[in-house]
Amino acid sequence: MERKEPAWVKTVSLSPPSLKDNTADADRLTDALKSQLNAERIILDLDLLRSLPDLVRKWNYQVRCVLLKNRKHWELIHLTHPRDPAKLLGLAVDLGTSRIVLHLVDLTTGNTLAESSFNNPQLSIGPDILERIHYADQENGLTRLNQLIIESLNQEIEKICDSGNCHASDILLIAAAGNTTMTHLFMGLKPYWIIREPYIPVVNRPDLLKATKLGIEVHPLARTFIFPNVGSYFGGDLIAGILFSGMHKTTQTAMLVDVGTNAEVVLGNANWLIACAGAAGPALEGGVTQMGMMAGPGVIDRFAIAPDTSNFEFHTISGTKPIGICGSGLIDLAAQLFLAGMIDSRGKLVPAMCGSRIKEKTGLPYFVVVPAKDSATGTDLTISQADLDSLVRSKAAMYTILETITTSVGISMHDLKNFYVAGTFGSFIRPESAITIGMLPDLPVASYKGLGNSSIGGATMVLTSAEYLKEVDNIRDQVTYFELNVNQEFMNRFSAAKFLPHTNATLFPSVHVWQNRNRRD
Amino acid sequence: MERKEPAWVKTVSLSPPSLKDNTADADRLTDALKSQLNAERIILDLDLLRSLPDLVRKWNYQVRCVLLKNRKHWELIHLTHPRDPAKLLGLAVDLGTSRIVLHLVDLTTGNTLAESSFNNPQLSIGPDILERIHYADQENGLTRLNQLIIESLNQEIEKICDSGNCHASDILLIAAAGNTTMTHLFMGLKPYWIIREPYIPVVNRPDLLKATKLGIEVHPLARTFIFPNVGSYFGGDLIAGILFSGMHKTTQTAMLVDVGTNAEVVLGNANWLIACAGAAGPALEGGVTQMGMMAGPGVIDRFAIAPDTSNFEFHTISGTKPIGICGSGLIDLAAQLFLAGMIDSRGKLVPAMCGSRIKEKTGLPYFVVVPAKDSATGTDLTISQADLDSLVRSKAAMYTILETITTSVGISMHDLKNFYVAGTFGSFIRPESAITIGMLPDLPVASYKGLGNSSIGGATMVLTSAEYLKEVDNIRDQVTYFELNVNQEFMNRFSAAKFLPHTNATLFPSVHVWQNRNRRD
Repeated sequence: MERKEPAWVKTVSLSPPSLKDNTADADRLTDALKSQLNAERIILDLDLLRSLPDLVRKWNYQVRCVLLKNRKHWELIHLTHPRDPAKLLGLAVDLGTSRIVLHLVDLTTGNTLAESSFNNPQLSIGPDILERIHYADQENGLTRLNQLIIESLNQEIEKICDSGNCHASDILLIAAAGNTTMTHLFMGLKPYWIIREPYIPVVNRPDLLKATKLGIEVHPLARTFIFPNVGSYFGGDLIAGILFSGMHKTTQTAMLVDVGTNAEVVLGNANWLIACAGAAGPALEGGVTQMGMMAGPGVIDRFAIAPDTSNFEFHTISGTKPIGICGSGLIDLAAQLFLAGMIDSRGKLVPAMCGSRIKEKTGLPYFVVVPAKDSATGTDLTISQADLDSLVRSKAAMYTILETITTSVGISMHDLKNFYVAGTFGSFIRPESAITIGMLPDLPVASYKGLGNSSIGGATMVLTSAEYLKEVDNIRDQVTYFELNVNQEFMNRFSAAKFLPHTNATLFPSVHVWQNRNRRD
Repeated sequence: MERKEPAWVKTVSLSPPSLKDNTADADRLTDALKSQLNAERIILDLDLLRSLPDLVRKWNYQVRCVLLKNRKHWELIHLTHPRDPAKLLGLAVDLGTSRIVLHLVDLTTGNTLAESSFNNPQLSIGPDILERIHYADQENGLTRLNQLIIESLNQEIEKICDSGNCHASDILLIAAAGNTTMTHLFMGLKPYWIIREPYIPVVNRPDLLKATKLGIEVHPLARTFIFPNVGSYFGGDLIAGILFSGMHKTTQTAMLVDVGTNAEVVLGNANWLIACAGAAGPALEGGVTQMGMMAGPGVIDRFAIAPDTSNFEFHTISGTKPIGICGSGLIDLAAQLFLAGMIDSRGKLVPAMCGSRIKEKTGLPYFVVVPAKDSATGTDLTISQADLDSLVRSKAAMYTILETITTSVGISMHDLKNFYVAGTFGSFIRPESAITIGMLPDLPVASYKGLGNSSIGGATMVLTSAEYLKEVDNIRDQVTYFELNVNQEFMNRFSAAKFLPHTNATLFPSVHVWQNRNRRD
């Protein structure tokens, strides 16, 4: 990540007052900062004003300042001696529906000092956003949801600061990215209208808020930047993701896909950005199969069938016996079963090829991926025909969304030089597998770039420079939200995509090559 | 006072959200206000954001808003239904060293609803600013001085609101004007360096502050505008005075004089403003004579000697028997004694003319203005030769300051069409008397305009429109502070002015006319 100016920490040397220049202390300081930052206006908190005259004299008119940009003006929130050893910290927060991720950043150097994450305690209210929105409508529901997130965040801040050998009160800037509902719950804003036509958030572009106002226990003057949203279904986490990818700064058109509960897709370049979201996720996240689960210890994230021995080879995240499979493992599995001929182009199990691994329960066939003796659970880890059907529908939905959005702006998916895949999913997915099942287009494998958690990535970036904050606003203004219209044309594309890799095999020439190689081996 | 746009209260009608326009509630509101106000940016407090979605729907997208301008951006601080009968109030405060004056203003109409005033409780610490600055340096001294003013203000706010049949919580904007030290004590800022070379205030241009942050018990989101100062010796009260006079908006050069402990003088027009301050006050305020006192009940404010009977005729503020004399009465007295020939052009008592009214104590002559039988104190009210000498020095200093400042910009005092006299002094002074003793230049009497308390006048103005706030900033930037250099030239002018009306009688042709008229009668 490139470090940009202006950073949030500035050291200024003031010319001492004289009879010829009897400008007041505060105005002397802000004038000096204004010319250094080329800023029009700098606001000082009253608390700082009260300590200022003694400090500037004690420090002999050398002052290190922490200033935050609040769109058009700057806010001066902290003063130290230029050689004060205390750290000046920022905290990036990814407000995930399931998991909250924190990065503790040194504002002076821009370096990340510590990372941590914890389960979103709102999971106890409801695992998905919809349940939480309904809960928020109950008496004290919103307050409770808000408290859950704020209190757990305060506890985690204590921990991460302990681990980084610093203090919560050294945190001066928080940057938080989340989907629109999560940021609403974080601010204690009613999410009621987000899910009701015409789907209106309370706010698109929150102002810089005092952290204490949100109940966050950090420096009393710390500010919180909350990533803006484009609407109810395109949140600040995606804006952070775009920032992190850098796709908004190049002339080459790129695609960004974030697979979560929904598949969220952004297409664009420095001149335009178009986004859409659609239901494609659950199966891809491993959410629907018996053995599916989120990435974690004991979870299969990579899977292969040895072409010579037909042995099943897999890798679990912790290296231990498997307890289940995550999205990337599942896509590997489906791709490998397809290349091995164990499922056909409709995604149906081929009994002749599956041998004893195929079983039947109440008339429905299922497939043993890991027999009981090799699993950590002591039971077979299986995938049913219904799971496979669901996976095929999901991958078809994903491909259709990608095809629809590219077609809408008259470009071909095959012309994309950069295809960013965000999220945990994106970090683990093997593009070959996703191409094999026809979920992602048949681009050179090097075009695919896993971004990891791009939401925390973007949030961490804004802690390093005011320039990124401006970029965030520009991205927010540039994104056009494209309403996916599930019409006949969409359904036609969807039907064509419900084959492995696709009805039109010429779209996936690589898959043909891989199939032949598999057969040859 | 002319009412200017934009006022602080705006009613907007929002287009209800639709699938075609799913802008968030907050952004929908600020977008509408931005176009109505031609504003670049509007900031909403989190508390308002939390109540916004329910309110806009309940009110069917009709909202009355209170917005305050914070230099470049606006802050939206209150929302009501357009027909909500509750008042939206502003409070103007003149932070006088001796007396605090309040005006309660209806922000919707701009009308003043109630006025009140009370003695500055800091008088108990020290009657003058210098003592308070020293006291502030003691342990808890600054806190105590700050609390005295804030607590008494809170009590008075309760009272003035009761009298106006409204609530302190309806006050949304406070505008406070005072000298630089008073505003520092009001904000809890250390005044230590104000009186120490090179005379540096903590702040020249305070930001818009939350009233609650200052401890003022009004609406929780109310803001406080504190008039900026030009330096330690040119405070926000004078900026308010200039605003109130309007001298900064006309092409005709005008003079503004505020006589307090110091004489503060501003000369200028729409293109330039020059200011200076000098010690000329005490005697003019009535501070040095045995019978001198501030204007109040029983105090002589007007004085005349009947030309035919030589009877002494006077008027007391309450119409009761006199207890003393205030500045304007003293100037009348001196002028009348001079026209009656009872004092000569050096200000010396003329025994032949004074008759039995002249007495002597320990070798020093004094003059009985009101004999014991006619006074409320039961003792003679007198003025000594020393008092008269002091008055002559004061009036000479005043005239010299006026002459010096006009000469410095190369204009003649006699060309001034408007001469504003601010303060209580200015409301009561009779220009003829001031001209007679040569304290003010011999301009047509109609040129003199008493402004009354111009500090509260200016503070009240900014409660009515954002436009005035901009004017305040422009005035602040336009004022050049002119350091009075007490050199040989100044001393020569001062010596020449130590005669009644002046060594150069041709400067005061009217006085010659009045003298002759007196003698003829």
